[in-house]
Amino acid sequence: MEDFTLNILNLFLVLVAAWLGGIASKRMGYPPILGELIIGIILGPTLLGWIKETETIKVLAEIGITLLMVYIGIEIDFADLKKASWAGLLAAIGGFLVPFALGYYTIIYFGGTPISGLFVAIAVGVTSLATKSRILVDLKLLNTRIAYVLMAGALISDTLALVIFAGIVSFADAGSLDLSGLLLVIGKAVLFFVGTILIGNYLLPKLGRRISKFKNQSSTMYFTLILIISFGYAELAELAGMHSILGAFMAGLFIKDNLFPKNIAREVQKSFYDVSIGFMAPIFFVSAGFSVSLNVFQTDLVMLITIVFMAIFGKIFGTMLFYLPSGHGWREGITVGAGMNGRGAVEIIIAGIGLQMGIINQNIFSILVFMAIFTTFTVPFMLKWTTVWLRQRGELVQVDGRKGILILGVNPLSLLMAKYLNKKEPIVHMIDANLEMVELAREKGFDCTHGNALKDVVMEQAKANESTVFLGMTGNPEVNLLAAQVARENFYIYNNHILLTQDEEGAGKSILEAIKASTVFAMKVHPEPWIQKIIKGEYSEKKNTVSKDIKTREWVLKHGKSKVLPFVIREKEGNVRVFHYDDIVRSGETVIFIS
Amino acid sequence: MEDFTLNILNLFLVLVAAWLGGIASKRMGYPPILGELIIGIILGPTLLGWIKETETIKVLAEIGITLLMVYIGIEIDFADLKKASWAGLLAAIGGFLVPFALGYYTIIYFGGTPISGLFVAIAVGVTSLATKSRILVDLKLLNTRIAYVLMAGALISDTLALVIFAGIVSFADAGSLDLSGLLLVIGKAVLFFVGTILIGNYLLPKLGRRISKFKNQSSTMYFTLILIISFGYAELAELAGMHSILGAFMAGLFIKDNLFPKNIAREVQKSFYDVSIGFMAPIFFVSAGFSVSLNVFQTDLVMLITIVFMAIFGKIFGTMLFYLPSGHGWREGITVGAGMNGRGAVEIIIAGIGLQMGIINQNIFSILVFMAIFTTFTVPFMLKWTTVWLRQRGELVQVDGRKGILILGVNPLSLLMAKYLNKKEPIVHMIDANLEMVELAREKGFDCTHGNALKDVVMEQAKANESTVFLGMTGNPEVNLLAAQVARENFYIYNNHILLTQDEEGAGKSILEAIKASTVFAMKVHPEPWIQKIIKGEYSEKKNTVSKDIKTREWVLKHGKSKVLPFVIREKEGNVRVFHYDDIVRSGETVIFIS
Repeated sequence: MEDFTLNILNLFLVLVAAWLGGIASKRMGYPPILGELIIGIILGPTLLGWIKETETIKVLAEIGITLLMVYIGIEIDFADLKKASWAGLLAAIGGFLVPFALGYYTIIYFGGTPISGLFVAIAVGVTSLATKSRILVDLKLLNTRIAYVLMAGALISDTLALVIFAGIVSFADAGSLDLSGLLLVIGKAVLFFVGTILIGNYLLPKLGRRISKFKNQSSTMYFTLILIISFGYAELAELAGMHSILGAFMAGLFIKDNLFPKNIAREVQKSFYDVSIGFMAPIFFVSAGFSVSLNVFQTDLVMLITIVFMAIFGKIFGTMLFYLPSGHGWREGITVGAGMNGRGAVEIIIAGIGLQMGIINQNIFSILVFMAIFTTFTVPFMLKWTTVWLRQRGELVQVDGRKGILILGVNPLSLLMAKYLNKKEPIVHMIDANLEMVELAREKGFDCTHGNALKDVVMEQAKANESTVFLGMTGNPEVNLLAAQVARENFYIYNNHILLTQDEEGAGKSILEAIKASTVFAMKVHPEPWIQKIIKGEYSEKKNTVSKDIKTREWVLKHGKSKVLPFVIREKEGNVRVFHYDDIVRSGETVIFIS
Repeated sequence: MEDFTLNILNLFLVLVAAWLGGIASKRMGYPPILGELIIGIILGPTLLGWIKETETIKVLAEIGITLLMVYIGIEIDFADLKKASWAGLLAAIGGFLVPFALGYYTIIYFGGTPISGLFVAIAVGVTSLATKSRILVDLKLLNTRIAYVLMAGALISDTLALVIFAGIVSFADAGSLDLSGLLLVIGKAVLFFVGTILIGNYLLPKLGRRISKFKNQSSTMYFTLILIISFGYAELAELAGMHSILGAFMAGLFIKDNLFPKNIAREVQKSFYDVSIGFMAPIFFVSAGFSVSLNVFQTDLVMLITIVFMAIFGKIFGTMLFYLPSGHGWREGITVGAGMNGRGAVEIIIAGIGLQMGIINQNIFSILVFMAIFTTFTVPFMLKWTTVWLRQRGELVQVDGRKGILILGVNPLSLLMAKYLNKKEPIVHMIDANLEMVELAREKGFDCTHGNALKDVVMEQAKANESTVFLGMTGNPEVNLLAAQVARENFYIYNNHILLTQDEEGAGKSILEAIKASTVFAMKVHPEPWIQKIIKGEYSEKKNTVSKDIKTREWVLKHGKSKVLPFVIREKEGNVRVFHYDDIVRSGETVIFIS
């Protein structure tokens, strides 16, 4: 009993530590892993000794690694990889190879073995996937060329790192390296990839279809199945002489939306996310901090500084160097390098495995953890500096990959809105469930899709994939909110503006915040009276050019909440954006409204 | 590496075993636990030895127990407990105490220690919570008095068992039993209950409110918080000298919908359910099979038979005996006893803890596992026999606790439907989001709520809690489906009939099946033409009394799919039910339709 008692208390404390560390980290704009590592170092045996590595923690951490790798695989979209530009590929290779080489020779220089050098080299070479979107949103970079290059780069670099890692583990495991041994290792690896791809492409979908015909379905059954697939792939990798994390990663690649009925797939992935990111992976990251030794600051300070320097310099310089042939300029190369400088989950996992396999010692492991912490710290600052630098030089290239505006709900109000937004090029797409309204929109010259916006197929048809703004304009705020959620979560539309009526209370607000949508018109509006006015033609269109920056909310209050309905803001260059809460009308910009 | 390899393979196999065992069990109408236990016995060391108990399995199983107990606590609704009738209380006490006593004396008779006798007594006394609703639905018992008594009985009996179990563990742990020791044990227990209740009632809601104001919310953060609360409570129970499962159970009691924002609470509970029921609890049940010894069939056959007999006889006879004062008759008592005869999760958990603590030996543990298997086997048969018996004698008392019919969507079609359904008493409630339609319904004399049916508050206002049928009649099948899901999952309305239009394809069907709803009119109908007919008065109401049983679907085909619209079926006793797919019009019943 006593032993078990301690386990629960320790598990409880580790979870609390992970939770607090993660929240604190996120509040400061960093990925949770940073806080989890640091709090593990502080509360663990290294410093305070309040939490420790019990058998329970070890098991959960190990399963956490597996599930996390599956999740990383799930997040990778083949379509994204295909779209990955030439520039992204260059950045990824340069950003991986140069620090890889520098890391390797640093270890050799300090007297390490070649195999430990290779491990460190991979750890120094990888790029954190986890941070990307958050920082890009914060720095308003989502529609820049840099963002596309960064995302592709991180993706490719991590995939590359994992494959090389698997190769190294195979050889480390095999021990001797004669020709027959080499062929065996390679043969098993090829078998593994061919096998997992065949299973993933043919067997799993077949299984999914078969199971979707079972009686007494429950999404929990699918959840268990995902776990089974994950551990099955992990085991296949082990059998092929590679590390289980590569198998888990491969499993993730095949656990896609189309494997199961779509509504179930989403629910199940949510549960999977919660278990991995909300339970077991944090336990791993906290416990990674346990194995850190602060002595390195005394005994191996020079090596620590050298590796951190090589990591940062290698990543940024390497990216810049290989990026040159893209013709996008060395400054953009440096910016991309700065953005890819963070190391995260994959690095810590690789370092942990190296330590566990006895390939690297505790000192090098500690150095790698600190390297992850330091490099992650640099990303927001350095990316901010470099993008400001590019922006000031006018070299921050916008990519208009997405320029659509998706409007849900055809009615006189939204049609007027569409008219203003459509000024520059025909990029407005509309959706309505009512065929008559669809006809009306088409008569007015708008592209309009008939159907239910909560369905992915309908959203796809309405070019949600190419849209950057979603506007929920039906009279039902709940529907607007749900559709905005779909737009955000399934189609990565981050600008969601929603018509809220006066009926809406607290509940709506929390969803609004959860999906980071904002209120169109910067106020709650009961649409009927305005629609009547528009139908009867009893309204006038007005313009108001602002001479001093003013918050949209204040603009509304100043002009009389119930008297005006501000539709769009015309920017100085002629671009038009939706008038919504959480925005500022800049000096010189014009608000177009009706009254 | 080798050690870890084996772990993954074993974990994979255990999960596969649990998954297959659970599915097979459910297919045969039994709870998954039955299949999990049996497959654990077959594939584990007891028979084939394909899977085994590694450290990983142990840790996951132990956490699984904790999470399962939390889940059992979450499932218990204070409101249900308050509603529990006098009869339910009697059944619970009788159904617990009598087998408890018989179990205790059986062990003493066979030479066991008093403490092992008490453990077995509890195991023999508990009632399985997990099976209840499934079997009740299958046997069409949901609206009978037996169902209410059964649910309340299982709830009370398990709560009782857990409290007594905690007491026994306290004493077993305390060792000596002098007065001061006794007072200390009791004092700590009281402190525990007072403390957890105070924390649950005041601290947790406060924490929930505080956190709901955080920026960068994510439901995963809440998921982690639930885990933290669970392990925290488990640890508190340990500190108070009780077993952690009691703490976990208490935690579940306080992890309710109102702790977090409602939309998040549901998501998070889903994840929690998946982790416990879809991952860790099955590992525990499979591994419980590992410790079973088949030798008991040779060495202790008499004791095995005696205990199984005492369990079955004690439960049924005890329930019947204590149930007599309720005045509902001994036959109903026997039926309730038969329904409560299954042992399940809680029994296996208690037996496992007894084995782990060394209080019972492997033989007695094995007997208890077989007892769980045998008793669970009996439930469907015995409950079926006894209810058929009651039904034939006309003693199967229906409880009209719920008699409402909830109709979503006011339109000429649904109003006509409401008219037919309202024949017997005014029990129709309607919901519409459009105020004009609400007024219309009210003019026609129907109780009608204005609002969005996807919101729980609106559903509550529309008496969803008192309804037994949900009818989704809006022109938007998606809304009908989503609302039916809310009706089913949040308000336990199991008869969901939904208007599907001809536009609807595959996607709708899978949701339909998932929430076990059926199509109203037994066919897809495009409502507009019919609505026009009704508005213009160009329709006639007809009746068709059926002389031979006919499936609703066939009735429709026989009368011409596009020519008739069958609303309701009038039963011989005058009751009226909705005409829907998956139903049979019995000989003598009358279909009321328009054409």
